[in-house]
Amino acid sequence: VLTVVLAESELELVPERLKHHPAMQKAAGRRGERAGRTILDASVHHDALRGFPDGMRRGRPDMVHFFLLLGLDSVLNKAGGLRLLVHTRNDELIRVSPETRIMRNQPRFIGLMEQLYRFGVVPQDPPLFRLERGWTLERVIREEAKGPVVALSEEARRVNPHRYFSEKARAGDLTLVLGGFPKGDFRTDVRKLATETVSLHPESLSIWTVMTEVLAAWEDGSGLFPE
Amino acid sequence: VLTVVLAESELELVPERLKHHPAMQKAAGRRGERAGRTILDASVHHDALRGFPDGMRRGRPDMVHFFLLLGLDSVLNKAGGLRLLVHTRNDELIRVSPETRIMRNQPRFIGLMEQLYRFGVVPQDPPLFRLERGWTLERVIREEAKGPVVALSEEARRVNPHRYFSEKARAGDLTLVLGGFPKGDFRTDVRKLATETVSLHPESLSIWTVMTEVLAAWEDGSGLFPE
Repeated sequence: VLTVVLAESELELVPERLKHHPAMQKAAGRRGERAGRTILDASVHHDALRGFPDGMRRGRPDMVHFFLLLGLDSVLNKAGGLRLLVHTRNDELIRVSPETRIMRNQPRFIGLMEQLYRFGVVPQDPPLFRLERGWTLERVIREEAKGPVVALSEEARRVNPHRYFSEKARAGDLTLVLGGFPKGDFRTDVRKLATETVSLHPESLSIWTVMTEVLAAWEDGSGLFPE
Repeated sequence: VLTVVLAESELELVPERLKHHPAMQKAAGRRGERAGRTILDASVHHDALRGFPDGMRRGRPDMVHFFLLLGLDSVLNKAGGLRLLVHTRNDELIRVSPETRIMRNQPRFIGLMEQLYRFGVVPQDPPLFRLERGWTLERVIREEAKGPVVALSEEARRVNPHRYFSEKARAGDLTLVLGGFPKGDFRTDVRKLATETVSLHPESLSIWTVMTEVLAAWEDGSGLFPE
Protein backbone atom coordinates (compact mmCIF):
# COMPACT_ATOMS: atom_id res chain seq x y z
CA VAL A 1 0.00 0.00 0.00
CA LEU A 2 1.13 3.53 -0.81
CA THR A 3 0.34 6.00 1.96
CA VAL A 4 0.52 9.67 0.98
CA VAL A 5 0.59 12.23 3.78
CA LEU A 6 -0.24 15.78 2.75
CA ALA A 7 1.77 17.41 5.51
CA GLU A 8 1.28 20.79 7.16
CA SER A 9 -1.43 21.54 4.65
CA GLU A 10 -2.88 25.03 4.72
CA LEU A 11 -6.40 24.12 5.71
CA GLU A 12 -7.92 25.92 8.70
CA LEU A 13 -10.90 27.91 9.90
CA VAL A 14 -10.58 31.69 9.84
CA PRO A 15 -8.25 32.36 12.79
CA GLU A 16 -9.56 34.15 15.89
CA ARG A 17 -7.47 37.26 15.22
CA LEU A 18 -8.87 37.65 11.69
CA LYS A 19 -12.53 37.02 12.45
CA HIS A 20 -13.41 40.67 12.84
CA HIS A 21 -11.57 41.89 9.75
CA PRO A 22 -14.15 43.66 7.52
CA ALA A 23 -13.25 41.48 4.50
CA MET A 24 -13.93 38.33 6.53
CA GLN A 25 -17.22 39.63 7.85
CA LYS A 26 -18.32 40.54 4.36
CA ALA A 27 -17.31 37.22 2.79
CA ALA A 28 -18.98 35.22 5.57
CA GLY A 29 -22.08 37.41 5.53
CA ARG A 30 -22.58 36.84 1.80
CA ARG A 31 -22.83 33.14 2.60
CA GLY A 32 -25.00 33.67 5.68
CA GLU A 33 -22.35 32.18 7.97
CA ARG A 34 -20.28 33.40 10.92
CA ALA A 35 -16.69 34.19 9.94
CA GLY A 36 -15.23 31.84 12.57
CA ARG A 37 -17.04 28.91 11.01
CA THR A 38 -15.71 29.49 7.50
CA ILE A 39 -12.55 28.05 5.97
CA LEU A 40 -9.71 30.49 5.38
CA ASP A 41 -9.32 30.95 1.62
CA ALA A 42 -6.46 33.05 0.28
CA SER A 43 -8.24 33.75 -2.99
CA VAL A 44 -11.10 35.44 -1.11
CA HIS A 45 -9.34 36.68 2.03
CA HIS A 46 -6.10 38.00 0.52
CA ASP A 47 -6.58 41.52 1.94
CA ALA A 48 -6.98 40.22 5.47
CA LEU A 49 -4.00 37.87 5.10
CA ARG A 50 -1.61 40.62 4.03
CA GLY A 51 0.72 41.27 6.95
CA PHE A 52 -0.69 38.33 8.94
CA PRO A 53 1.91 35.74 10.14
CA ASP A 54 2.59 33.28 7.27
CA GLY A 55 -0.14 35.19 5.44
CA MET A 56 1.45 34.50 2.04
CA ARG A 57 1.04 30.77 2.37
CA ARG A 58 -2.12 30.26 4.42
CA GLY A 59 -5.66 29.52 3.30
CA ARG A 60 -5.21 26.94 0.53
CA PRO A 61 -8.17 24.53 0.64
CA ASP A 62 -7.80 24.25 -3.15
CA MET A 63 -4.55 22.30 -2.69
CA VAL A 64 -6.25 19.77 -0.43
CA HIS A 65 -9.10 19.52 -2.92
CA PHE A 66 -6.93 18.76 -5.98
CA PHE A 67 -4.80 16.37 -3.98
CA LEU A 68 -7.84 14.34 -2.92
CA LEU A 69 -9.46 14.50 -6.33
CA LEU A 70 -6.40 13.15 -8.10
CA GLY A 71 -5.75 10.50 -5.47
CA LEU A 72 -9.30 9.25 -5.03
CA ASP A 73 -9.95 9.01 -8.79
CA SER A 74 -6.68 7.20 -9.50
CA VAL A 75 -6.37 3.67 -10.83
CA LEU A 76 -4.34 2.85 -7.71
CA ASN A 77 -7.13 3.92 -5.37
CA LYS A 78 -9.73 2.00 -7.39
CA ALA A 79 -7.52 -1.06 -6.89
CA GLY A 80 -7.40 -0.53 -3.11
CA GLY A 81 -3.71 0.35 -3.03
CA LEU A 82 -3.78 3.97 -1.83
CA ARG A 83 -4.19 5.60 1.61
CA LEU A 84 -4.56 9.37 1.77
CA LEU A 85 -3.95 11.32 4.98
CA VAL A 86 -4.26 15.08 5.32
CA HIS A 87 -2.29 16.68 8.13
CA THR A 88 -2.91 20.40 8.73
CA ARG A 89 -0.94 23.38 10.03
CA ASN A 90 -2.87 23.15 13.30
CA ASP A 91 -1.97 19.49 13.79
CA GLU A 92 -5.25 17.99 12.79
CA LEU A 93 -5.37 14.70 10.94
CA ILE A 94 -8.09 14.15 8.34
CA ARG A 95 -8.77 10.55 7.35
CA VAL A 96 -10.50 10.06 4.03
CA SER A 97 -12.26 6.88 3.08
CA PRO A 98 -11.01 5.48 -0.24
CA GLU A 99 -14.61 5.03 -1.39
CA THR A 100 -15.23 8.77 -1.29
CA ARG A 101 -16.41 10.21 -4.58
CA ILE A 102 -15.40 13.76 -3.98
CA MET A 103 -17.26 16.76 -5.40
CA ARG A 104 -15.56 18.54 -8.32
CA ASN A 105 -16.91 21.92 -7.29
CA GLN A 106 -14.45 23.83 -5.12
CA PRO A 107 -16.92 26.00 -3.19
CA ARG A 108 -18.85 22.86 -2.28
CA PHE A 109 -15.68 21.13 -1.12
CA ILE A 110 -14.94 24.14 1.09
CA GLY A 111 -18.47 23.88 2.48
CA LEU A 112 -17.84 20.22 3.28
CA MET A 113 -14.63 21.07 5.11
CA GLU A 114 -16.54 23.65 7.17
CA GLN A 115 -18.96 20.92 8.18
CA LEU A 116 -16.05 18.66 9.01
CA TYR A 117 -14.56 21.24 11.37
CA ARG A 118 -17.93 21.67 13.00
CA PHE A 119 -19.01 18.05 13.38
CA GLY A 120 -15.72 16.10 13.25
CA VAL A 121 -17.23 13.62 10.79
CA VAL A 122 -18.96 14.10 7.42
CA PRO A 123 -21.26 12.85 6.14
CA GLN A 124 -22.90 11.20 9.17
CA ASP A 125 -23.49 7.98 7.32
CA PRO A 126 -21.31 6.67 5.84
CA PRO A 127 -18.53 8.68 7.57
CA LEU A 128 -16.17 9.44 4.68
CA PHE A 129 -14.12 12.20 6.32
CA ARG A 130 -12.99 12.20 9.93
CA LEU A 131 -11.05 14.97 11.66
CA GLU A 132 -8.90 14.26 14.73
CA ARG A 133 -6.93 16.80 16.76
CA GLY A 134 -3.53 16.61 18.40
CA TRP A 135 -1.60 15.02 15.55
CA THR A 136 1.81 16.56 15.08
CA LEU A 137 3.52 15.49 11.87
CA GLU A 138 5.95 13.43 13.98
CA ARG A 139 3.04 11.55 15.50
CA VAL A 140 1.39 11.00 12.12
CA ILE A 141 4.57 9.45 10.79
CA ARG A 142 5.32 7.46 13.94
CA GLU A 143 1.85 5.97 14.23
CA GLU A 144 0.47 5.96 10.70
CA ALA A 145 3.37 5.40 8.31
CA LYS A 146 3.67 2.00 6.65
CA GLY A 147 7.00 0.97 5.17
CA PRO A 148 9.90 3.37 4.58
CA VAL A 149 9.11 7.10 4.68
CA VAL A 150 10.14 9.13 1.63
CA ALA A 151 10.27 12.92 1.59
CA LEU A 152 10.98 15.16 -1.40
CA SER A 153 13.36 18.07 -1.68
CA GLU A 154 14.80 19.78 -4.74
CA GLU A 155 18.24 19.66 -3.12
CA ALA A 156 18.29 15.92 -2.51
CA ARG A 157 19.65 13.18 -4.78
CA ARG A 158 17.77 13.14 -8.09
CA VAL A 159 15.99 9.95 -9.02
CA ASN A 160 14.10 8.75 -12.05
CA PRO A 161 10.51 8.83 -10.76
CA HIS A 162 9.30 5.87 -12.78
CA ARG A 163 12.18 3.61 -11.86
CA TYR A 164 12.31 4.71 -8.24
CA PHE A 165 8.62 4.38 -7.40
CA SER A 166 7.93 1.28 -9.49
CA GLU A 167 10.78 -0.49 -7.68
CA LYS A 168 9.44 0.68 -4.33
CA ALA A 169 6.01 -0.67 -5.28
CA ARG A 170 7.54 -4.06 -5.99
CA ALA A 171 9.29 -3.98 -2.60
CA GLY A 172 6.14 -3.41 -0.51
CA ASP A 173 4.60 -0.57 1.49
CA LEU A 174 5.80 3.00 1.35
CA THR A 175 4.82 6.33 2.88
CA LEU A 176 5.33 9.54 0.92
CA VAL A 177 5.31 12.91 2.67
CA LEU A 178 4.23 15.88 0.52
CA GLY A 179 4.10 19.49 1.66
CA GLY A 180 0.54 20.82 1.51
CA PHE A 181 1.57 24.49 1.26
CA PRO A 182 2.31 26.73 -1.73
CA LYS A 183 5.73 28.06 -0.78
CA GLY A 184 8.44 28.04 1.85
CA ASP A 185 9.59 25.06 3.82
CA PHE A 186 8.24 22.47 6.20
CA ARG A 187 8.10 23.79 9.75
CA THR A 188 8.90 20.28 10.96
CA ASP A 189 12.31 18.80 10.18
CA VAL A 190 10.97 16.28 7.69
CA ARG A 191 14.39 14.99 6.66
CA LYS A 192 14.87 13.74 10.19
CA LEU A 193 11.55 11.90 10.12
CA ALA A 194 12.11 10.39 6.67
CA THR A 195 13.96 7.22 5.84
CA GLU A 196 15.09 8.80 2.58
CA THR A 197 14.83 12.19 0.88
CA VAL A 198 14.96 12.36 -2.91
CA SER A 199 14.43 14.91 -5.67
CA LEU A 200 12.16 14.36 -8.68
CA HIS A 201 13.04 17.58 -10.45
CA PRO A 202 15.38 20.53 -9.97
CA GLU A 203 12.43 22.95 -9.84
CA SER A 204 9.72 22.90 -7.21
CA LEU A 205 6.67 20.98 -8.44
CA SER A 206 3.02 21.37 -7.58
CA ILE A 207 1.39 18.65 -5.46
CA TRP A 208 -0.57 17.33 -8.43
CA THR A 209 2.54 17.15 -10.58
CA VAL A 210 4.31 15.05 -7.95
CA MET A 211 1.21 12.89 -7.59
CA THR A 212 1.22 12.35 -11.38
CA GLU A 213 4.73 10.90 -11.33
CA VAL A 214 4.31 8.84 -8.18
CA LEU A 215 0.89 7.34 -8.92
CA ALA A 216 1.72 6.32 -12.49
CA ALA A 217 5.02 4.71 -11.47
CA TRP A 218 3.58 2.95 -8.43
CA GLU A 219 0.65 1.56 -10.44
CA ASP A 220 3.01 0.25 -13.09
CA GLY A 221 5.28 -1.30 -10.46
CA SER A 222 2.41 -3.01 -8.67
CA GLY A 223 1.28 -4.73 -11.84
CA LEU A 224 -2.03 -2.94 -12.19
CA PHE A 225 -1.57 -2.78 -15.94
CA PRO A 226 -1.05 -5.58 -18.48
CA GLU A 227 2.60 -6.37 -19.17
CA VAL B 1 5.51 17.24 -28.89
CA LEU B 2 2.44 15.77 -27.24
CA THR B 3 -0.79 17.52 -28.24
CA VAL B 4 -3.79 16.85 -26.02
CA VAL B 5 -7.19 17.83 -27.33
CA LEU B 6 -9.94 18.05 -24.73
CA ALA B 7 -12.74 17.26 -27.15
CA GLU B 8 -16.42 18.26 -26.97
CA SER B 9 -15.78 19.71 -23.55
CA GLU B 10 -18.80 20.94 -21.64
CA LEU B 11 -17.87 24.61 -21.49
CA GLU B 12 -20.46 27.14 -22.68
CA LEU B 13 -22.32 30.27 -21.75
CA VAL B 14 -25.81 29.83 -20.29
CA PRO B 15 -27.87 28.86 -23.38
CA GLU B 16 -30.51 31.25 -24.72
CA ARG B 17 -33.37 28.95 -23.71
CA LEU B 18 -32.21 28.80 -20.08
CA LYS B 19 -31.43 32.49 -19.57
CA HIS B 20 -34.80 33.32 -18.11
CA HIS B 21 -35.00 30.37 -15.76
CA PRO B 22 -35.42 31.75 -12.22
CA ALA B 23 -32.39 29.79 -10.90
CA MET B 24 -30.18 31.34 -13.61
CA GLN B 25 -31.45 34.83 -12.93
CA LYS B 26 -30.80 34.41 -9.23
CA ALA B 27 -27.30 32.96 -9.64
CA ALA B 28 -26.30 35.68 -12.13
CA GLY B 29 -27.88 38.42 -10.03
CA ARG B 30 -25.86 37.40 -6.98
CA ARG B 31 -22.75 38.08 -9.03
CA GLY B 32 -24.12 41.30 -10.55
CA GLU B 33 -23.98 39.83 -14.05
CA ARG B 34 -26.50 39.08 -16.82
CA ALA B 35 -27.33 35.36 -17.04
CA GLY B 36 -26.37 35.18 -20.73
CA ARG B 37 -22.85 36.31 -19.93
CA THR B 38 -22.22 33.65 -17.29
CA ILE B 39 -20.74 30.20 -17.79
CA LEU B 40 -23.13 27.28 -17.40
CA ASP B 41 -22.16 25.39 -14.23
CA ALA B 42 -23.96 22.17 -13.37
CA SER B 43 -23.11 22.45 -9.68
CA VAL B 44 -24.99 25.77 -9.47
CA HIS B 45 -27.56 25.39 -12.25
CA HIS B 46 -28.63 21.76 -11.70
CA ASP B 47 -32.33 22.65 -11.29
CA ALA B 48 -32.44 24.49 -14.59
CA LEU B 49 -30.54 21.70 -16.35
CA ARG B 50 -32.97 19.00 -15.28
CA GLY B 51 -34.98 18.03 -18.33
CA PHE B 52 -32.88 20.20 -20.64
CA PRO B 53 -31.32 18.39 -23.68
CA ASP B 54 -28.07 16.71 -22.55
CA GLY B 55 -28.72 18.38 -19.18
CA MET B 56 -27.03 15.60 -17.25
CA ARG B 57 -23.67 16.22 -18.88
CA ARG B 58 -23.58 19.95 -19.59
CA GLY B 59 -21.98 22.76 -17.60
CA ARG B 60 -18.64 21.34 -16.51
CA PRO B 61 -16.06 24.17 -16.44
CA ASP B 62 -14.41 22.31 -13.54
CA MET B 63 -13.24 19.59 -15.94
CA VAL B 64 -11.56 22.14 -18.19
CA HIS B 65 -10.00 23.75 -15.12
CA PHE B 66 -8.43 20.55 -13.72
CA PHE B 67 -7.30 19.50 -17.16
CA LEU B 68 -5.45 22.77 -17.70
CA LEU B 69 -4.07 22.87 -14.17
CA LEU B 70 -2.57 19.41 -14.42
CA GLY B 71 -1.23 19.96 -17.92
CA LEU B 72 0.22 23.43 -17.44
CA ASP B 73 1.96 22.52 -14.16
CA SER B 74 3.45 19.30 -15.54
CA VAL B 75 7.15 18.60 -15.98
CA LEU B 76 6.43 18.02 -19.68
CA ASN B 77 4.92 21.47 -20.11
CA LYS B 78 7.80 23.11 -18.22
CA ALA B 79 10.12 21.40 -20.72
CA GLY B 80 8.17 22.78 -23.70
CA GLY B 81 6.83 19.40 -24.81
CA LEU B 82 3.09 19.84 -24.34
CA ARG B 83 0.35 21.53 -26.38
CA LEU B 84 -3.12 21.82 -24.86
CA LEU B 85 -6.21 22.49 -26.97
CA VAL B 86 -9.74 22.79 -25.62
CA HIS B 87 -12.54 22.06 -28.07
CA THR B 88 -16.08 22.75 -26.85
CA ARG B 89 -19.57 21.37 -27.47
CA ASN B 90 -20.35 24.47 -29.55
CA ASP B 91 -17.31 23.96 -31.78
CA GLU B 92 -15.12 26.61 -30.29
CA LEU B 93 -11.38 26.07 -30.03
CA ILE B 94 -9.52 27.54 -27.08
CA ARG B 95 -5.78 27.88 -27.43
CA VAL B 96 -3.82 28.14 -24.21
CA SER B 97 -0.31 29.48 -24.02
CA PRO B 98 2.06 27.04 -22.29
CA GLU B 99 3.40 29.89 -20.15
CA THR B 100 0.02 30.37 -18.49
CA ARG B 101 0.12 30.07 -14.72
CA ILE B 102 -3.49 29.29 -14.16
CA MET B 103 -5.45 30.31 -11.06
CA ARG B 104 -6.18 27.53 -8.57
CA ASN B 105 -9.49 29.07 -7.57
CA GLN B 106 -12.39 27.62 -9.53
CA PRO B 107 -14.79 30.59 -9.34
CA ARG B 108 -11.99 32.83 -10.62
CA PHE B 109 -11.29 30.46 -13.48
CA ILE B 110 -14.97 30.55 -14.39
CA GLY B 111 -14.79 34.36 -14.31
CA LEU B 112 -11.84 34.22 -16.69
CA MET B 113 -13.76 31.99 -19.10
CA GLU B 114 -16.64 34.49 -19.04
CA GLN B 115 -14.21 37.20 -20.07
CA LEU B 116 -12.85 34.94 -22.78
CA TYR B 117 -16.32 34.42 -24.27
CA ARG B 118 -16.87 38.17 -24.17
CA PHE B 119 -13.56 39.42 -25.55
CA GLY B 120 -12.18 36.43 -27.45
CA VAL B 121 -8.76 36.91 -25.85
CA VAL B 122 -7.68 37.10 -22.17
CA PRO B 123 -5.73 38.75 -20.75
CA GLN B 124 -5.18 41.52 -23.31
CA ASP B 125 -1.44 41.43 -22.85
CA PRO B 126 0.04 38.88 -22.95
CA PRO B 127 -2.83 36.96 -24.66
CA LEU B 128 -2.74 33.62 -22.83
CA PHE B 129 -6.17 32.31 -23.86
CA ARG B 130 -7.69 32.72 -27.30
CA LEU B 131 -11.15 31.56 -28.37
CA GLU B 132 -11.96 30.85 -32.02
CA ARG B 133 -15.32 29.79 -33.46
CA GLY B 134 -16.22 27.33 -36.20
CA TRP B 135 -13.94 24.48 -35.19
CA THR B 136 -15.63 21.11 -35.48
CA LEU B 137 -13.65 18.29 -33.88
CA GLU B 138 -12.91 16.99 -37.39
CA ARG B 139 -11.38 20.33 -38.30
CA VAL B 140 -9.35 20.49 -35.08
CA ILE B 141 -7.85 17.10 -35.80
CA ARG B 142 -7.34 17.76 -39.52
CA GLU B 143 -5.63 21.11 -39.04
CA GLU B 144 -4.07 20.93 -35.57
CA ALA B 145 -3.05 17.33 -34.92
CA LYS B 146 0.65 16.50 -35.02
CA GLY B 147 1.71 12.89 -35.48
CA PRO B 148 -0.65 9.93 -35.14
CA VAL B 149 -3.99 10.56 -33.41
CA VAL B 150 -4.82 8.33 -30.45
CA ALA B 151 -8.29 8.07 -28.93
CA LEU B 152 -9.29 6.13 -25.81
CA SER B 153 -12.17 3.72 -25.33
CA GLU B 154 -12.77 1.11 -22.65
CA GLU B 155 -13.73 -1.35 -25.37
CA ALA B 156 -10.53 -1.03 -27.39
CA ARG B 157 -7.34 -3.11 -27.13
CA ARG B 158 -5.81 -2.72 -23.66
CA VAL B 159 -2.29 -1.36 -23.50
CA ASN B 160 0.21 -0.80 -20.73
CA PRO B 161 0.13 3.00 -20.40
CA HIS B 162 3.77 3.39 -19.44
CA ARG B 163 5.10 1.22 -22.22
CA TYR B 164 2.69 2.52 -24.84
CA PHE B 165 3.17 6.24 -24.25
CA SER B 166 6.89 6.13 -23.51
CA GLU B 167 7.44 4.31 -26.81
CA LYS B 168 5.28 6.84 -28.61
CA ALA B 169 7.32 9.65 -27.06
CA ARG B 170 10.51 8.09 -28.43
CA ALA B 171 8.90 7.84 -31.89
CA GLY B 172 7.99 11.55 -32.20
CA ASP B 173 4.84 13.67 -32.13
CA LEU B 174 1.47 12.39 -31.02
CA THR B 175 -2.03 13.79 -30.57
CA LEU B 176 -4.28 12.41 -27.86
CA VAL B 177 -8.04 13.04 -27.94
CA LEU B 178 -9.78 13.05 -24.56
CA GLY B 179 -13.50 13.52 -23.99
CA GLY B 180 -14.19 16.67 -21.97
CA PHE B 181 -17.58 15.51 -20.68
CA PRO B 182 -18.60 13.54 -17.58
CA LYS B 183 -20.63 10.74 -19.14
CA GLY B 184 -21.97 9.36 -22.37
CA ASP B 185 -20.17 9.18 -25.66
CA PHE B 186 -18.50 11.45 -28.16
CA ARG B 187 -21.05 12.98 -30.53
CA THR B 188 -18.41 12.86 -33.25
CA ASP B 189 -17.21 9.46 -34.50
CA VAL B 190 -13.77 9.76 -32.93
CA ARG B 191 -12.66 6.27 -33.88
CA LYS B 192 -12.94 7.29 -37.53
CA LEU B 193 -10.78 10.36 -36.94
CA ALA B 194 -8.16 8.51 -34.89
CA THR B 195 -5.18 6.57 -36.19
CA GLU B 196 -5.54 4.20 -33.26
CA THR B 197 -7.96 3.63 -30.38
CA VAL B 198 -6.69 1.98 -27.20
CA SER B 199 -7.89 1.26 -23.68
CA LEU B 200 -5.95 2.13 -20.53
CA HIS B 201 -8.33 0.51 -18.10
CA PRO B 202 -11.53 -1.54 -18.20
CA GLU B 203 -13.41 1.14 -16.20
CA SER B 204 -13.99 4.67 -17.37
CA LEU B 205 -11.35 7.04 -15.96
CA SER B 206 -11.54 10.72 -15.13
CA ILE B 207 -9.66 13.14 -17.36
CA TRP B 208 -7.04 13.79 -14.68
CA THR B 209 -6.47 10.07 -14.15
CA VAL B 210 -5.81 9.60 -17.85
CA MET B 211 -3.55 12.65 -17.83
CA THR B 212 -1.61 11.13 -14.91
CA GLU B 213 -0.77 7.98 -16.88
CA VAL B 214 -0.05 9.71 -20.15
CA LEU B 215 2.07 12.59 -18.85
CA ALA B 216 4.26 10.43 -16.61
CA ALA B 217 4.91 7.88 -19.36
CA TRP B 218 5.54 10.48 -22.04
CA GLU B 219 7.98 12.39 -19.83
CA ASP B 220 9.86 9.21 -19.04
CA GLY B 221 10.00 8.24 -22.72
CA SER B 222 11.23 11.66 -23.80
CA GLY B 223 14.19 11.48 -21.43
CA LEU B 224 13.12 14.31 -19.16
CA PHE B 225 14.33 12.36 -16.14
CA PRO B 226 17.78 10.96 -15.38
CA GLU B 227 18.28 7.37 -16.52
